[in-house]
Formats: sequence, C-alpha cells, structure tokens
Amino acid sequence: MGVKDFFRVLSLDQALACAQSFAALGTERVTLGEALGRVLGEDVKAALDVPGFARATMDGYAVDARSTFGASETNPALLRVTGTVDMGRPAALRIDHGEVARIATGGMLPEGADAVVMVEHTEHIDAETIEASRAVAPGQNVLGRGEDVRQGEIVLVRGTRLRAQELGLLAALGRAELCVHRRPVVGIISTGDEVVPIEVEPGPGQIRDVNTTTLGALTAQAGAEPRLYGLVPDDPDALRAASRSALGAADVVLLSGGSSVGARDYTLDVLDGLPDAELLLHGVALKPGKPTILGRVGSKAFWGLPGQVTSAMVVFQLLVRPCLERLGGMAPARPPARARARLSRNVASVHGRTDLVRVRLREDAGELWADPLLGPSGLLRTMTQADGLVEIGADVEGLDAGTEVWVTPV
Amino acid sequence: MGVKDFFRVLSLDQALACAQSFAALGTERVTLGEALGRVLGEDVKAALDVPGFARATMDGYAVDARSTFGASETNPALLRVTGTVDMGRPAALRIDHGEVARIATGGMLPEGADAVVMVEHTEHIDAETIEASRAVAPGQNVLGRGEDVRQGEIVLVRGTRLRAQELGLLAALGRAELCVHRRPVVGIISTGDEVVPIEVEPGPGQIRDVNTTTLGALTAQAGAEPRLYGLVPDDPDALRAASRSALGAADVVLLSGGSSVGARDYTLDVLDGLPDAELLLHGVALKPGKPTILGRVGSKAFWGLPGQVTSAMVVFQLLVRPCLERLGGMAPARPPARARARLSRNVASVHGRTDLVRVRLREDAGELWADPLLGPSGLLRTMTQADGLVEIGADVEGLDAGTEVWVTPV
Repeated sequence: MGVKDFFRVLSLDQALACAQSFAALGTERVTLGEALGRVLGEDVKAALDVPGFARATMDGYAVDARSTFGASETNPALLRVTGTVDMGRPAALRIDHGEVARIATGGMLPEGADAVVMVEHTEHIDAETIEASRAVAPGQNVLGRGEDVRQGEIVLVRGTRLRAQELGLLAALGRAELCVHRRPVVGIISTGDEVVPIEVEPGPGQIRDVNTTTLGALTAQAGAEPRLYGLVPDDPDALRAASRSALGAADVVLLSGGSSVGARDYTLDVLDGLPDAELLLHGVALKPGKPTILGRVGSKAFWGLPGQVTSAMVVFQLLVRPCLERLGGMAPARPPARARARLSRNVASVHGRTDLVRVRLREDAGELWADPLLGPSGLLRTMTQADGLVEIGADVEGLDAGTEVWVTPV
Repeated sequence: MGVKDFFRVLSLDQALACAQSFAALGTERVTLGEALGRVLGEDVKAALDVPGFARATMDGYAVDARSTFGASETNPALLRVTGTVDMGRPAALRIDHGEVARIATGGMLPEGADAVVMVEHTEHIDAETIEASRAVAPGQNVLGRGEDVRQGEIVLVRGTRLRAQELGLLAALGRAELCVHRRPVVGIISTGDEVVPIEVEPGPGQIRDVNTTTLGALTAQAGAEPRLYGLVPDDPDALRAASRSALGAADVVLLSGGSSVGARDYTLDVLDGLPDAELLLHGVALKPGKPTILGRVGSKAFWGLPGQVTSAMVVFQLLVRPCLERLGGMAPARPPARARARLSRNVASVHGRTDLVRVRLREDAGELWADPLLGPSGLLRTMTQADGLVEIGADVEGLDAGTEVWVTPV
C-alpha cells in the first residue's frame, strides 16, 4: 500500500490536458452510407452552387415582382398565366411584365421572373388570368442560386462529427465518398482476484466482471471500437502479457483493476518495462476517480482505471472520452455537451478536490432540475438512475439547493 | 393544388397523439454484448443480492467498530493485526474486540467485523499493532450485503433504453442474454421529378436526393433500422408499387416528395387503395412541416413527409421519432430530452400555429444560450449549424430575447 506515496496527483484540468495530449489518428475513406457518427478528416469544399438555380420555396406563380407592386385585397394585380414550370427542367418560357407561370415548391424560376406569389394570395379569374392580392418583393419565396452554398466555399470543416444533417449536406454536394478519421480501437482488460466472468455464479467474496461490459459500451457510445480482452488474473506476468498484446492491437488500452492496489502496481510496471513509455499522471484530485493512471506508449494511451465500476465510469466520461475524441480527430466539443439545470438540494463536498455528484434530471414548472442521487458512490443502482454528473469545483465546499449547475450527460 | 382544401389540420399535440397511437413491436433475445441502445422487453428481477457479501469500500483494516469508539489523534485506539483478507475468498479469520485484519477495497469483511478503518487514519506501531486515530461507525466504509440490489427486486423495467450503466448492472446480475423489443424497420422512399440520385450531376432545374440520406441517418440515430428504397419516379403507379413493397417489409414507411403536391396526392392514393388503412392526420399546424400525412395500415405507420429536407427533418424529430420510440417499446422519454437555454434575440412567429426555430447552443458567462439561426427555413447550411429546435407555441406571437426556452436536440 505504499504506491500512493508516489502519487503525482493532478487537478482535473491538468489531467484533462494530459488526456488530450495525443495526436489525431490517420484517416480513411468511407461511403456516405457508412459515415454517420464518424469524424470528418477533410475540409469539405462545395463543388457547385446549392441550389444550382433560383428555386421556388412556395407553391404559386413565378412573376416579375414589379408586376405586383401596389397590389392589395382591394386593388389586386391582374396577371396573365402563360404556362406551367415543369419540375426538374429548365422553364421553357419567359415571363414578361404582367405575366406569371404556375410553379410548385422546388421549381426552377423561368427567365424574367424574380419572385413567387403564393397560391394562397391569388384568385382565378378565368383559365388564363389570376388576381394577386398582395405584392411580392424581388427574391420573395425564392431561394437564389448559391444562396445556400456557394461553389468553392468550405461548408464543413475537418473534425466535425457527422450527424444526419451533415450527411444531407454532403449528399446535396454529391459526396458519395469521404475522408474520415479512423475510429480509435480501445483494448479493454479487466482484472482482480475477486472478479469472475459474468457467466459464473460468484462465490463468497467474489463479484462478477462488470467493468468489461460497462467500459466496452462506454467506448462504443463514444464512437470508438472496443476490443475486449476479458478477465486477466491479477498477477504481474499475466497483466504484462495482456497489456502488451492489447497495446500491439489497439490505440488505447483501459486496464481496470478489481483489487486496485495490485492493478495499479502492475500498470506502472507495464509502463516501466516498455521502451518509449512515459507516465503522464498518477492520481487525480477527483472523487470518485482518484486512483487513475495515464501513460503514453509511443502514440498510444495506456489508462489504469479504478476497479470500482462507478468510479471508472466517471473517469471515462471526464477524461477517457475527451482522450478518445482527440485521437478520433474531433474538434473541441461542439455543441456544448452540457445541460444547465437547477440543483434541487444542498450537496456537500471537500475543498481541494473536484467532487462529482450523480444527478437525475427532471422537468418541473418550466425548469430543468438536477436531483442529486444519494447513497454510497459505488452503487450500480444510482448509476442507472443517473442522467448526468455535476462537478463541484475544488475551490468550493458544496453547493446550495437552487444553484444553477452544469450537467454532463452519462 | 386543391388537395389542401381537404386538410384536416391538427395541432402539434394532436398530431403527436396520432404518432404515438401505435402498439409496441414484439421482442427478441440478444446477448448482453449486442444490447447497447436496445429497449428492454422485460422487467429485470435480481436473481441475487448485490453485493453478495459485506464488502470494504476503502483500503484499510476490518474492525468491530466498537474497538475504535473514542479514538482520536491525541488518544488513538491500539489494535492488533491478526491477518490479511485475501481478495475473492471468504475471510478465514474472525475479528474480536481490539483486533483488525488488513483488507483492500472490494474485500469481504471477516466475521466479527462491521466497519473498515481507512489506512490513511492509521499508524504502524510494530509488525502486529496499529494505532487508529479516528473512530468508525458500524457500517462505515462497507457496502452491506444486498445494499445495492436486493434479490427478487425489479431493478430495470421494460421500456428502458439500455446505456452502458444498465448493461453494467445486467452484467452484475449475470444476465448474459436478455429480451429486448424488436427495432422498427423503416422503409424510406424519396420521390420528385426534379430529384436525381446523388451520383448524378444535377442539370438545370434538378437537385440531388438529400432526403434518402438524411432520413436514413435520422432513423439510425433514433435506434431504428433504415431500409432504403431510393428514388422512385413521381408517378402514381411507381409510388403505389414502391409503397406497397415497403409496407410489406417495414414497420414504418417514410415517403418524402420532392414535388410535394404529387407525392401528397399519391400518399393519400396509396392509403385509399389498401384494405385496413386509415388516414390519421393530413396537415399539422406547424412551420415548417405543415404538409405532413400519417396513415395507419394495419399495425404499420405510413408517413408522407414534406419534400423540403429541412421541413422533413423537423417533422421527423417532433413526430416520427416519438412514433418510432413507441413502436420500439420505449417508455415515455426518460431522461428529459430537452435542454433549457436563454434565447439571445427576439424571434417572431405567427399566432395559431407552432413555429420551430433552429438554434445553435453556446455556453457563455455561466449560462446556456440559444442563438436563433436566421435565413430562409429551407437552408441546408443552417441545418448543419443547428444544435436544436425551439418551439414557439401556437398561442404566442414570438418570444423576446432573454426568454428561457426548451431546446430539442437535432
């Protein structure tokens, strides 16, 4: 139990800086259909104007706006219907003063037209004539050529996480293939003499391996690729061998120890035994999550996480996830990942360390409330009841009910 | 353009009730490793106590708390170390008054012990003796048997979306397999005479098929399974055939029309031609998103969505997603899906219809701000800049800067 004497305990901010000190992985090409959730590895430049022509944004009549100037309910403009714009084709006709052509949303404005009168603002007089009861301004109910995206413009930047809407924009630009960052591969090792595989009925003193499942799922939720090494005996040779094997195949290794003391020793031991390895942090002024280790092995990250799964989860959300995002090429988090809520009761904390409190979110009376979940920090139960974590800074001693706080989703 | 006369325009709330009027799909068994993001199809009852024995939650010494009563820095308790608790085994020793055993976090308390003195609060006197400088209460630094989960208790209820922490709890209970709801299969059809596949360079009057990609990705983001039918010509026979084929294979069909008028007619036409079909809604008092259609065909949902992709996206988030969640067996949304933010500028709207405004979220001066994105509602660009949607109720005429609003993430 002497290892703790060697702790170089960092603040949460310092630890985060270490976690983010890794370079982005390389890129690969994927099809648009495979790109959801991936991180752009290139700046995307528009190869063409979108739309490529002036389009109607309403159903109605294409018109030279000047033909409608002064029109009103009592003094409507009389307009001659000279034809219909077919969808998907250049309009074959030309609009002169006093003329209109029928046009549907998305139709291409004919030559001479610069606006659309909404069908709701017209009346049929006869087969060839309508009355418009409102004037339109030039450009009204029209999306001009290149008004959405201009050719040559950079529309999405490297480091953007691709959601449905970014994929839609890429489809509009005809990008059937794109360049994305490689997803970090994360080797997950669980250890502890008291830990048994989940298929085994635990005997007295034993618990099931919760960490492999939980850390694997957190990794997948973070957009990275888990590779499970399962349960490794809590002895130096076995852990060293498993760690080296995982470091050979993965970009990041997460070693979480049931019996934290042994696993911590062996994590340091593995780092010690590798060329090109460096200890970045050993202990964080964080509760839960203090016994965290991070080493750099070449370009790879080697994490020693607390054996207690609820602590490991907090460390994952606060430190490992930002590390994976950095490796995965993500630009600093956009949108803000945090919600703002009002604390529903007092929460105590200790000065000099960052405390993380699990909360459940609740909408009430037009406000978002964060209800702190009480009980020992190691409970799996409160972990499943939690929607987020509230950080209580190292410089304060607790927060009062009613305080507005940031909530990091879990 | 006479179809709009037959609109049975519903309010957003009425439309939502229609969208959620579908029964949950059946269930299937999956392994724990496949269960991330799935929706529980059973109530999960604990088959055993967790933990199964009283566990140390700190490194230190197992003790009968009474041996420490009255201990302080100036008057420490003298305690005899009688052995060490091995991890993963029942402790072979018994603690009597004045005795302790070394124990690591996660170790099983020996008989006679009911608390743990943290190693930080002890001093070695000799090989067999320590001093404890603080008293501990019974149960301190210990998780009692069944304190987390009690055997027979229901720990997760049907309808819960499974995150990393729920999977961790299931692992602790030894649930290597579980029952989840089937994921809705969503057939996606895109149409419009002006629409070309994304591989094709659009000619004058043409645009690329953005909807297939966007709606497919939105479906996947919602935890459902997209099946893409691609671009279908905007003629009644082709649309009817494609719709019937999609309805045969999918639980939900999304038909979005480039030229909304035709597609709307044909959507109604498809519904008309099917036995056991019912029109649930035809038009929503919503901007954007008014020309929305929903029909029920047996147990399946048939949606006609606006051709404009940005409108289709709003309708997806507000109506289709809740429909998919209901079909997918989800209990009413937990946690609240919405964030609370402060509007950074005035936004106008029209009385009598719900307006949706796209916003970008920003953290500033300890507050979460929603910056409205200006410009025509049809822009793909603002769609990619948006983090969420703000709903302006039908009963108000705009919102002032500084108002607190709910933001639905997009």
